[in-house]
Amino acid sequence: MVAHMNDEALRKTIASGEAWYYSRSRKALWKKGETSGHVQRVLELRVDCDQDALWLKVEQQGPGACHTGRRSCFYRAVPLGKAGSTTLEFRDADKVFDPGKVYK
Amino acid sequence: MVAHMNDEALRKTIASGEAWYYSRSRKALWKKGETSGHVQRVLELRVDCDQDALWLKVEQQGPGACHTGRRSCFYRAVPLGKAGSTTLEFRDADKVFDPGKVYK
Repeated sequence: MVAHMNDEALRKTIASGEAWYYSRSRKALWKKGETSGHVQRVLELRVDCDQDALWLKVEQQGPGACHTGRRSCFYRAVPLGKAGSTTLEFRDADKVFDPGKVYK
Repeated sequence: MVAHMNDEALRKTIASGEAWYYSRSRKALWKKGETSGHVQRVLELRVDCDQDALWLKVEQQGPGACHTGRRSCFYRAVPLGKAGSTTLEFRDADKVFDPGKVYK
């Protein structure tokens, strides 16, 4: 998954060892798993060369991270080598939980 | 590494199977490796659930992807469990090429 952090989210992530993010649309801090229980325990937190991107290696609690019910948000591939319109192909796209039941 | 794509960069990446990006600061399309020779052959291109993020699995030509001379841009870790100021720790941070020679 990809999400944003602000300074407070980063501070809380560092202090707690669990992933906190910041929703730019809702203008609100959120802890991953606060509704679903699918908390992310951070195993390693890395920062990139120009310090505007973070990479989290996490132990994902529960079956998946994606709000659609998949393990990962990246469950579709774009076929390569084609010009013009294209059709996405599913990859590891089986639902591992029912988002209707988890996000109430 | 993390970089931006615009629609043209994505189109060129899909058509060529090599990674193209878009620099928002320079307002210009760029092909990874056009100066350094460190081209990225795309093995798989995935898109996330809300289709605003792409994940590229690449075969990196040359010794590394980072403009600082490292293999990866994520060569520093943020220690967890601490409040207040912190000191980044190096991870796989040996330089694998001399950026002064590669980027002329």
